Amino acid sequence: MNSFGRIFRVHIFGESHGPCVGVTIDGCPPGLPLEETDFTPDLERRKAGAKGTTPRKEDDIPHVKSGIFNGHATGAPITILFDNNNTRSGDYEKQRATPRPGHADFVAHHKYGGFEDYRGGGHFSARLTTGIVAAGVIAKKLLAQATITAVIAEVAGEPDQERGLQRAIDAKDTVGGIIECRATGLPIGLGEPFWDSAESLLAHAMMAIPAVRGIEFGTGFAAARMFGSEHNDAILDAEGHTRTNHAGGIVGGITNGNELVFRIAIKPTSSTPKEQQTLNWETGQVEPFSVKGRHDLCVALRAPVIVEAMTAIVLADLLMLEAANRSANNPHLAPPR
Amino acid sequence: MNSFGRIFRVHIFGESHGPCVGVTIDGCPPGLPLEETDFTPDLERRKAGAKGTTPRKEDDIPHVKSGIFNGHATGAPITILFDNNNTRSGDYEKQRATPRPGHADFVAHHKYGGFEDYRGGGHFSARLTTGIVAAGVIAKKLLAQATITAVIAEVAGEPDQERGLQRAIDAKDTVGGIIECRATGLPIGLGEPFWDSAESLLAHAMMAIPAVRGIEFGTGFAAARMFGSEHNDAILDAEGHTRTNHAGGIVGGITNGNELVFRIAIKPTSSTPKEQQTLNWETGQVEPFSVKGRHDLCVALRAPVIVEAMTAIVLADLLMLEAANRSANNPHLAPPR
Amino acid sequence: MNSFGRIFRVHIFGESHGPCVGVTIDGCPPGLPLEETDFTPDLERRKAGAKGTTPRKEDDIPHVKSGIFNGHATGAPITILFDNNNTRSGDYEKQRATPRPGHADFVAHHKYGGFEDYRGGGHFSARLTTGIVAAGVIAKKLLAQATITAVIAEVAGEPDQERGLQRAIDAKDTVGGIIECRATGLPIGLGEPFWDSAESLLAHAMMAIPAVRGIEFGTGFAAARMFGSEHNDAILDAEGHTRTNHAGGIVGGITNGNELVFRIAIKPTSSTPKEQQTLNWETGQVEPFSVKGRHDLCVALRAPVIVEAMTAIVLADLLMLEAANRSANNPHLAPPR
Amino acid sequence: MNSFGRIFRVHIFGESHGPCVGVTIDGCPPGLPLEETDFTPDLERRKAGAKGTTPRKEDDIPHVKSGIFNGHATGAPITILFDNNNTRSGDYEKQRATPRPGHADFVAHHKYGGFEDYRGGGHFSARLTTGIVAAGVIAKKLLAQATITAVIAEVAGEPDQERGLQRAIDAKDTVGGIIECRATGLPIGLGEPFWDSAESLLAHAMMAIPAVRGIEFGTGFAAARMFGSEHNDAILDAEGHTRTNHAGGIVGGITNGNELVFRIAIKPTSSTPKEQQTLNWETGQVEPFSVKGRHDLCVALRAPVIVEAMTAIVLADLLMLEAANRSANNPHLAPPR
Repeated sequence: MNSFGRIFRVHIFGESHGPCVGVTIDGCPPGLPLEETDFTPDLERRKAGAKGTTPRKEDDIPHVKSGIFNGHATGAPITILFDNNNTRSGDYEKQRATPRPGHADFVAHHKYGGFEDYRGGGHFSARLTTGIVAAGVIAKKLLAQATITAVIAEVAGEPDQERGLQRAIDAKDTVGGIIECRATGLPIGLGEPFWDSAESLLAHAMMAIPAVRGIEFGTGFAAARMFGSEHNDAILDAEGHTRTNHAGGIVGGITNGNELVFRIAIKPTSSTPKEQQTLNWETGQVEPFSVKGRHDLCVALRAPVIVEAMTAIVLADLLMLEAANRSANNPHLAPPR
Repeated sequence: MNSFGRIFRVHIFGESHGPCVGVTIDGCPPGLPLEETDFTPDLERRKAGAKGTTPRKEDDIPHVKSGIFNGHATGAPITILFDNNNTRSGDYEKQRATPRPGHADFVAHHKYGGFEDYRGGGHFSARLTTGIVAAGVIAKKLLAQATITAVIAEVAGEPDQERGLQRAIDAKDTVGGIIECRATGLPIGLGEPFWDSAESLLAHAMMAIPAVRGIEFGTGFAAARMFGSEHNDAILDAEGHTRTNHAGGIVGGITNGNELVFRIAIKPTSSTPKEQQTLNWETGQVEPFSVKGRHDLCVALRAPVIVEAMTAIVLADLLMLEAANRSANNPHLAPPR
Repeated sequence: MNSFGRIFRVHIFGESHGPCVGVTIDGCPPGLPLEETDFTPDLERRKAGAKGTTPRKEDDIPHVKSGIFNGHATGAPITILFDNNNTRSGDYEKQRATPRPGHADFVAHHKYGGFEDYRGGGHFSARLTTGIVAAGVIAKKLLAQATITAVIAEVAGEPDQERGLQRAIDAKDTVGGIIECRATGLPIGLGEPFWDSAESLLAHAMMAIPAVRGIEFGTGFAAARMFGSEHNDAILDAEGHTRTNHAGGIVGGITNGNELVFRIAIKPTSSTPKEQQTLNWETGQVEPFSVKGRHDLCVALRAPVIVEAMTAIVLADLLMLEAANRSANNPHLAPPR
Repeated sequence: MNSFGRIFRVHIFGESHGPCVGVTIDGCPPGLPLEETDFTPDLERRKAGAKGTTPRKEDDIPHVKSGIFNGHATGAPITILFDNNNTRSGDYEKQRATPRPGHADFVAHHKYGGFEDYRGGGHFSARLTTGIVAAGVIAKKLLAQATITAVIAEVAGEPDQERGLQRAIDAKDTVGGIIECRATGLPIGLGEPFWDSAESLLAHAMMAIPAVRGIEFGTGFAAARMFGSEHNDAILDAEGHTRTNHAGGIVGGITNGNELVFRIAIKPTSSTPKEQQTLNWETGQVEPFSVKGRHDLCVALRAPVIVEAMTAIVLADLLMLEAANRSANNPHLAPPR
């Protein structure tokens, strides 16, 4: 499903080489100040251009089609389109018989019976994350008291980004990385028991980002090797401050007011400059294969702003839901006529 | 939200020390053979009793209240209750002023304004997973061609389960573990692009299991340190067999027909026999704290069957959705009268 | 789907002749005062016993299994069961080959492939509305400022209920009726544009009540024969009072603060004492048919409390949603730590 | 919520005087033949131009932005935009202080705190139904065996459309009407028990169409005045043919294979040429009021194609759901590798 959220709902659409990609945000509260220029900083962070990123550059100018009026959200759905200008579909036509290793080509062909738009990964392209970033800008505004920051913690196993990238350049190959996201200023109480736990929704959203292979909260996988007495965070005061933060700010699926911390693993870009092997559907043979098209050496480089956006989308939805939970039996909600 | 799934939908309810816990499964196709005894083997696997598990033992007899008739699912919602017989609520009454570190006590108190059932963790208790296991039994039946197997890969950092548990016993503390889940026999094509990717839904479900702190698919976090040419799985034939399986059976969010593989990290049981510290709400002081109640030394020991159940629930829902996707434009669906 | 609502969600289950029927209410805000005796008055209104109602009488004692603790809702799902004691399944076994006209027997048999619980209508029985009435009691409590009242406006075309019923008794047949529902004290602003308009959700809920065949808001079908200048309700003041109320309290899908008014049509009870004709599946012949079992002469008599419950369920959900809409960009929601 | 459907999901967006209105259809099965010209006939039926319709004419050319490739649906979301070219917003700026009777102006102002796009009704405009008609074209294609036909049954109380319209012209006022919709070729079994009954979903969808005030199925409100023995439709054969069709093709919430029949009531256009009265927010006085802008004398004239579209959207979703219900326990779904 190309939709996410219960109250603050985000819908994405578009293909890599179609006329555009886009997003509809439904459920944004009316009155939120919002202009097209608000989207620029985060969209710039997502864009290619830096070392290690694809030579395909798109302007990513947000075309707001609905839901914003006189500088504010109206309460109606906000639809934003981003034109695809810089496409070279010919690259993909030639390679249609050879599903690219690590890409969705093979599964998409099976699932959609050959009707999928295969050009540049079609609907599976990371270009779809442009709309996510735009939705994230709105969600961040709704989380006025919170600060969400995602950074690259590792490239190719190196904490130093430049060094990690150099490993890719030296090896004429692609590399992966680790993104760490932290959020402060969150209220106690976001998240629902069991399936709508804060971890469940954050993991759901993060695993939807192309190339993400894992997620861990707080101490994460290392927690599996700790003693309970080590891992437990002692509660220090009535605001819920804890001595340590092994839990990463979520206990019982609910934010506890401490810093939210999680990490995600991003695989190396599947489109490597190295020669690979894959099946040729026409010949039925496994053949040597070289990637065409323009690609990132390390997709993790462009991911932090997407991770922040997804985090904000999840938290804004939970914040709105919590407002519902807290206010529903408030007699002032239904004033007498 | 205490519900999960789009077509095959699971709803849970109940508290640790209330009259029962239970589950409603809505959307099970009619005609599936189903009897109360079908639930026994998986319920037995979840139960306490083995070394390292809690002395609180419950019979966990499934009381089917609806949806099964003459040995088959009827197509109506299936509701199953499990009585809580072996409760000692007094243990919890005494400790209400001291929120247990690592437990939901503190956040639940904030979120629910003190109205939560705090006895034994109330609705946050792992006892709620009894209903999940029952739903998993039904989901597994729907996945007739698939085999789902979760095992304990590590206890306290030890691949040998006995040795890991001995570390807990020796240290008079609790320990965590790693569960690995594998599924074979899955068709190509389960999962939807982006937010309903197979990884997103599986991660969503797994992070809902109490004590889970992370999940990784295929090579997982290690993928972040590989080159693209190493990580990519070469496609070998038209059935989608790959030379390696670093992807863990999911590419582009969609099952590729290879073995599904993922691992989850489970933190050490929060209720450790070791003395800890926590806030006393009444005194406002941080005080020494010892756990009352009966607990598992390592909750990971009882988790595999829950992980299998959640996996089956996700896959059954995706399988039913895929049936809808494939059949809707089938002219034979709407036969002429 | 046996579920309804986005935030205040109601799930029902059970069969007419199974061990029980029941309901789970998920999303009830914590702290709402709630005891088993709160359910009694509305459950009594739904019960049989009055002239024209079925001789099958059930105690309808609510067995609360979860979500209520110390006299308040906890915020966890509330599950309530109602035992089925007074069943005579033998009546139905005998008639299995002859699908009852006007009942779901024929369609259920096709849809569920013969696996449906056919006894007493199974899951299609109006007995399922017991859980709806219980959910309605909770929803009414959430609508503290509102008053919802449904009454029988017509039985067998007669505004006088007794006279209408006498027509049925005289004709040895069953009759239908009209229910009118009014709600006052609603705030302006409940309902969302388009699909979640207040009318859409109310119509959705009402058409789910067995035997309902139509719904109209305000002037309803008569509006189709009025001029625009007649039908429009002139707005008189800033609180939205209107000179007339042809709109029935909803404009543009949103409550306008005036009295909510709608009417529903209820068909005559399908189980009439009159001899009818129907197919015999075994013989393939159309045969004379006489109803077994115990039935209401006019199901409309027991419907008002169900209509009120459904109305309350819809409005409570919209009220909670509106709390989310209004509060999300409130900076006080996320207080700094 | 501006979304509808569980599997075949339709999302709408846009405002009357914004750059465009649009629709995203998510869940359309891949391979459905689909071209921009397929939308033309139904879009033409919705357009203004005939006697009694607004002089505002829009080209309504569908701009497909995603989800269609090489003449077929790809399985990815289909987004279609319709430009707004022929807007005269100045008409609305002048009248902002006087909420138009019968329109959403007043409630929208309250609900959205004055941030709503008020020009031409903004997001509440019937112009939003353009996207519905486009979604309906796709849904109709999915219902290959079914024929859905909606007609104007009455204008201003007259079965003769011309005469009804003349009444409006003579009175210099606006008039309402009745639309009747029939569908043949539907399979037995569409619809779910209780809340997702076919009537519930159809009523939900129909009440979302602007100006609809009521809906009735089969004999509808007249059923409330019939005897049970009259109203019951005798079942004649194993295909479910009935002697009469008072039920309108739905029993127990599920299609029974007979013709689906329902009627909806449409109120007279709120924007009447007659002088009316309304509040002036600036003066606080009730003042005479004359409508500016261009409007239909009878909105019912343009409604049949919208009713057909909504019907098709509901039935396509139920058809896909039924495919899931029927196929999930089919062992052939999950072929062994």
